[in-house]
Amino acid sequence: MKVGFIGLGQMGSGMAANLLKAGHEVIVYNRTPAKAEALIAQGATVATTIAETCWGDAVITMLANDDAVESVVLGGHGVISNLQASALHISCSTISVALSERLTAEHGQAGQRFVAAPVFGRPDMAAAGQLFVVAGGERAAVEVATPLLGAIGQKTFVVSTPKAANLVKLSGNFLTASLIEALGEALALIAKGGVDQRHYLEILTSSLFTAPAYKLYGGLIASGAFEPAGFAAPLGQKDIRLVLAAADDLRVPMPLASLLRDRFLTLMANGGDRLDWSAIGKLAALDAGMAPA
Amino acid sequence: MKVGFIGLGQMGSGMAANLLKAGHEVIVYNRTPAKAEALIAQGATVATTIAETCWGDAVITMLANDDAVESVVLGGHGVISNLQASALHISCSTISVALSERLTAEHGQAGQRFVAAPVFGRPDMAAAGQLFVVAGGERAAVEVATPLLGAIGQKTFVVSTPKAANLVKLSGNFLTASLIEALGEALALIAKGGVDQRHYLEILTSSLFTAPAYKLYGGLIASGAFEPAGFAAPLGQKDIRLVLAAADDLRVPMPLASLLRDRFLTLMANGGDRLDWSAIGKLAALDAGMAPA
Amino acid sequence: MKVGFIGLGQMGSGMAANLLKAGHEVIVYNRTPAKAEALIAQGATVATTIAETCWGDAVITMLANDDAVESVVLGGHGVISNLQASALHISCSTISVALSERLTAEHGQAGQRFVAAPVFGRPDMAAAGQLFVVAGGERAAVEVATPLLGAIGQKTFVVSTPKAANLVKLSGNFLTASLIEALGEALALIAKGGVDQRHYLEILTSSLFTAPAYKLYGGLIASGAFEPAGFAAPLGQKDIRLVLAAADDLRVPMPLASLLRDRFLTLMANGGDRLDWSAIGKLAALDAGMAPA
Amino acid sequence: MKVGFIGLGQMGSGMAANLLKAGHEVIVYNRTPAKAEALIAQGATVATTIAETCWGDAVITMLANDDAVESVVLGGHGVISNLQASALHISCSTISVALSERLTAEHGQAGQRFVAAPVFGRPDMAAAGQLFVVAGGERAAVEVATPLLGAIGQKTFVVSTPKAANLVKLSGNFLTASLIEALGEALALIAKGGVDQRHYLEILTSSLFTAPAYKLYGGLIASGAFEPAGFAAPLGQKDIRLVLAAADDLRVPMPLASLLRDRFLTLMANGGDRLDWSAIGKLAALDAGMAPA
Repeated sequence: MKVGFIGLGQMGSGMAANLLKAGHEVIVYNRTPAKAEALIAQGATVATTIAETCWGDAVITMLANDDAVESVVLGGHGVISNLQASALHISCSTISVALSERLTAEHGQAGQRFVAAPVFGRPDMAAAGQLFVVAGGERAAVEVATPLLGAIGQKTFVVSTPKAANLVKLSGNFLTASLIEALGEALALIAKGGVDQRHYLEILTSSLFTAPAYKLYGGLIASGAFEPAGFAAPLGQKDIRLVLAAADDLRVPMPLASLLRDRFLTLMANGGDRLDWSAIGKLAALDAGMAPA
Repeated sequence: MKVGFIGLGQMGSGMAANLLKAGHEVIVYNRTPAKAEALIAQGATVATTIAETCWGDAVITMLANDDAVESVVLGGHGVISNLQASALHISCSTISVALSERLTAEHGQAGQRFVAAPVFGRPDMAAAGQLFVVAGGERAAVEVATPLLGAIGQKTFVVSTPKAANLVKLSGNFLTASLIEALGEALALIAKGGVDQRHYLEILTSSLFTAPAYKLYGGLIASGAFEPAGFAAPLGQKDIRLVLAAADDLRVPMPLASLLRDRFLTLMANGGDRLDWSAIGKLAALDAGMAPA
Repeated sequence: MKVGFIGLGQMGSGMAANLLKAGHEVIVYNRTPAKAEALIAQGATVATTIAETCWGDAVITMLANDDAVESVVLGGHGVISNLQASALHISCSTISVALSERLTAEHGQAGQRFVAAPVFGRPDMAAAGQLFVVAGGERAAVEVATPLLGAIGQKTFVVSTPKAANLVKLSGNFLTASLIEALGEALALIAKGGVDQRHYLEILTSSLFTAPAYKLYGGLIASGAFEPAGFAAPLGQKDIRLVLAAADDLRVPMPLASLLRDRFLTLMANGGDRLDWSAIGKLAALDAGMAPA
Repeated sequence: MKVGFIGLGQMGSGMAANLLKAGHEVIVYNRTPAKAEALIAQGATVATTIAETCWGDAVITMLANDDAVESVVLGGHGVISNLQASALHISCSTISVALSERLTAEHGQAGQRFVAAPVFGRPDMAAAGQLFVVAGGERAAVEVATPLLGAIGQKTFVVSTPKAANLVKLSGNFLTASLIEALGEALALIAKGGVDQRHYLEILTSSLFTAPAYKLYGGLIASGAFEPAGFAAPLGQKDIRLVLAAADDLRVPMPLASLLRDRFLTLMANGGDRLDWSAIGKLAALDAGMAPA
C-alpha cells in the first residue's frame, strides 16, 4: 500500500521502518526533517508538506499530544483538507477521547475513513514490530487498516469505535502508571525495612508479578536510571490528564488517578521534564526521607 | 520429618495435605476439630492440644492474624512453652512485622529455631502445592525448613530475617490490592464509556498485563462474583493495616496504601465481611453511580 | 454612575438591587428576561441586547462559568465589541485564571478598562450588600470601580492583577470546600461513635471553630437539607476544576483539591446536580454505611 | 479542693498554675522534677511519687500520649491503685477512645469516679486559663469536676461519656489539621501564582475565614517559623493516628485523615520531630518545588 507517515519520534521511527520492511511504499513527514534520514536509507520518501503524505491509500499519524494532532490534521494544510475521499487516516497517537470523537466526525463529513489505532509498547517494541494495537472504527475502515497495523504490531485488538480505542489505550496507561506508583511505595517500604530492592524484585517477578512491566519499572525505580526516557514524564502526565478528563466527562471518580496526577505534578515541579515517567516511582522514597539512588 | 500443623483453614488444609503427600508424619490441630477429618483420611493424626503438635522436629502455624498466632504460640499452653530446644517453628501466617520480631526474640530465648515463611497464592495453589514461599531466619533453621517448604510450594525464596520475610509478604499483598484498585477504576471508566468489560480484560491480559492476577481479579470484578471468598475482605483489610503499621514504624508515607485502607473500610461498613477482597474493585463503579452487576 | 449589569442569578439579582439602592442608574440584561422584573420595580431599565448594557461608564458581569462569560463578553455582539474606549468592565464571576488573563489582554487591546472583582458570600449576603470583594486591575481602573464595588460589598480587598483576584477567589472556594469535607468526615465519625451531631457542632462553633462557615455548613450536613441550593454543586465542582487547572499550570500538587474533585464527581454521578455543594459533606457518612438523614 | 496534678509540660504547667490561682491546694508531680519549680513559688507542693498526688479529692492528669497515661494510671504505683474510693480522676490528656473506655471500666471497678476532660487550646491559652474543655462522665462526677475545670478553661462543654469527650477532642484536632493542610495547599498555589502570602492571609482572615486558627496557622506557614513548637508535630501525628484508630473501629473511611497521616509521616521522615505540627502546611510548597522560606 501507499502510505503517508507523520511523526518520527522514538515510536514513529520504528513503526515507519516496519511498514517499509513489510513492503509498503512510505512517504514520511516530520516537523524536524533530520529525523527522516535513517528511514530514507531504508527506502522511505520524504514529504516537505503534510499534503504530500496524503497522496496514497492511507496516512498514519503518530504524534505526542492533542495539540500536535490538531495542528497536523485540521486546518487548510492538514490531513483532512488533503486526503482523498474514501482514503484512510489511522491515528496511532495517544489522544483525548474528545479529540478522537471530533476527528471521527470531521473525517466522516469529508467522506474519509478514520481508524483510531493507539499502540501499547515502548520504543524497543516499536522497533521490533512487536507493539499491541487497539483499533477502533467502522468495520470496512479497520479492514483496510489491518495489513498496515499487522506490520507495526504483534497483535491487533478491534473495538467498536475510535473513541473506545482511545479510552482503552488511556486506561491501559493508567494501569501501568498505577503499577509504577505501587512499586514505588513497596520498594520504599521494603528498602527502609532493610530488604535488598533487587532481590525483592526478583522474588516478585518470579512469583506472582510476572507481567514484564514489574521487571522493567521495578528495575528503573531501584536503579534510579530515568535517563534517557523511554516514555517521557510529560507524556505520562498528559495521559493521566486525559484519563481524568474522560473520567470527568463520564462522571467516574478515580482516586488513584488523582494520586497519579499529583505525583506527576510533583515530579514536574522538581525538574522531571526529561526523565522517564517511572521517575514518579521514586517520590515515595523521597517522601520517606531516603536519599536519591 | 515429624511435624505439627496448626490452622486448617482454606490455605492450611491444602498445605497439610501436601506435607502428607510428601511423606511427612503430620499431626494436625485446629480450633474447630471437624476441619481435620479429610486430613485424617489422608494419614494425619489429630492433636487435641497445641502441646501435642510440638512433639516432633517442627511445628508449622498457618493462622488468620496476629491475635490467633499470639494465642497459639505464646502462653503456657502455646508452642513456645511446649516445643523442644532446637526444634523449629515455621510461621506461614501473614502477620505483622512487629509480631515477627517478637516471635524471633522469644524463640531465641527458648533456644528454639524460628523461620517466618509466609506464602503467596490462593487456596487452589495451596491445594496444588504451588505456593510461593518467602522464608526468613537463621541459615541453619531455614535449611531444616527447606524440605517442608518444598512440599507446600513450587518455589522458596530465602531472605535474611523473619521480619524481612513478613515485610516482603505484606508488601506483596499491598501490590495485589493496588492492582485490584487500579483495575476497579479502569473497569468503571471503560464500562461507563461504552466498552465491554470482558473484551477489555481480554485485551489487557493478552497484551501487557499478563500477570495472572489481572485475569483473576479483573474477572471477579467484572462478574461481581465475590462469594465464596478465595481471600476474604477482612483478611485483606488486616494486611493493609499491617502494611500501614510497618510503614508508620519505618516512616514511609504510602498514599496508595492509605487509599486502600479507606476502600476496605467502605467495603466493611457496607456489608463486605463475607466477600472476596477484590470486592473493593467494585467501589469505583458504585461511586460512579453504576448499579451493582 | 451609569452601569450595565449582566447576569441576574441568585447572586446577581441582589448585587444589582444594591447598585440601585446606592443611586446608580442600572440597565440589566439576563438570558431569561423574566428575572429582571423585580429589579424593574426597583428602578432598573431592561436591555434586550448585551450592546445596550454597554452605553454607560461600566458594565458588570456576574455569570455562572467561563462559557457564559465568553459568550457574553467575546464575539461581535459581546461586551468588548460594544463597550466604549476607556469604559470599564468589572467581571465578578468566578472564572478561570486563564480566562481572566485573556479578558485582560483583549480589553487592553480594545483600549478598555478591566477589573476582575470576584466576590465571597452566598445569596443572602449578596442581597444584603454584605459581600467581600477581591478586586484586581490597573490602579486607575480599580479607582473607577470602587464606588460600585462599595455598593455590593461590605469590604473590598485590592490585589495587583485581575488574574490574582481570580486566583484568590478560587483558592478561597477551595478552602471552604475543604472545610466542608473535613466537617463531613468529622460528623460521620462522631455520629457513628454515638455523639449528637448538633451538640457537637455547638461545641465546635462556640470554641475554636468560630468562622460562620462551620455553623452554616455543619448545620446543612447534619440536617441533610441540601435543597434549595445556596451554591449549587455543579458550581462547586466547576470551581475545584478551575483550582486544579490553575494548579496544573503552576505545577502545584494539591492532594486535598484532588480529593474534593473526586467527591464532586461522586456526588454528580449519584444525582447531585440540584443540591447545595455542601452535599459532598454527606459522602463520608454514606461511605461509612450510615443511612441518609 | 485538694487536688493532685500529674504532667507539667507546656500545657500542664499553665493549667496547674490556674488551679492554684483559683485557690485550690495542688500537689504536683512530673517525671522531670525541675519543671515543678515555678509552681512551688506559686504555692504548689511537690510529690515525689504518683501515690502522693492521690491524697485529696481529685487527681488531674495531663500527659502526652496513651503510653504515658497508662504508665501513670495503671499498675501498682499508679493512680488507680492509690486513689481513694469515690475520689475523682480527671483525664485531660488527648488519648485514644479505646484507652478512655478502659480507664472508665477500671476506675468503675475500683469504685472511683472518672471524667475525661480533654482541652482545646495552645499553651498561651492554658496559661491564661482560657482553654475550652469537653467533659464526659457520670453526672455526679462531672459536677465534682466542674469547679476545677472552670479554673483551667473559659468554657466547659459536657458530653455523655468519657469516650465521647475523647472522640470530640480527637475529631477537633482532625478539623484543625485539615485546616492546616488546606491553608498549606492554598498558600502554595497563590504564592506560585504571584500573590503575596501575607496579604492573602489578611484577606482571608478579615472576610470569611475568621476563626483564629486561620490567622495563627496561616502566619506560621507563611513565615516558616515552626520552632519552638506550640504543639509538636509528633503529638499531631499521634492524634491523627488516634482519629484513624477510632475511625477504623467504627468503620468510617476518612480520606482526608488518611492524607494527614501521610503528611505527618513525610514530615517526620524528613526531620520534623521538633517542629510545630503546622509544618505539615509547608509540604505542599515543597512538593511544588518552592524553596523553604
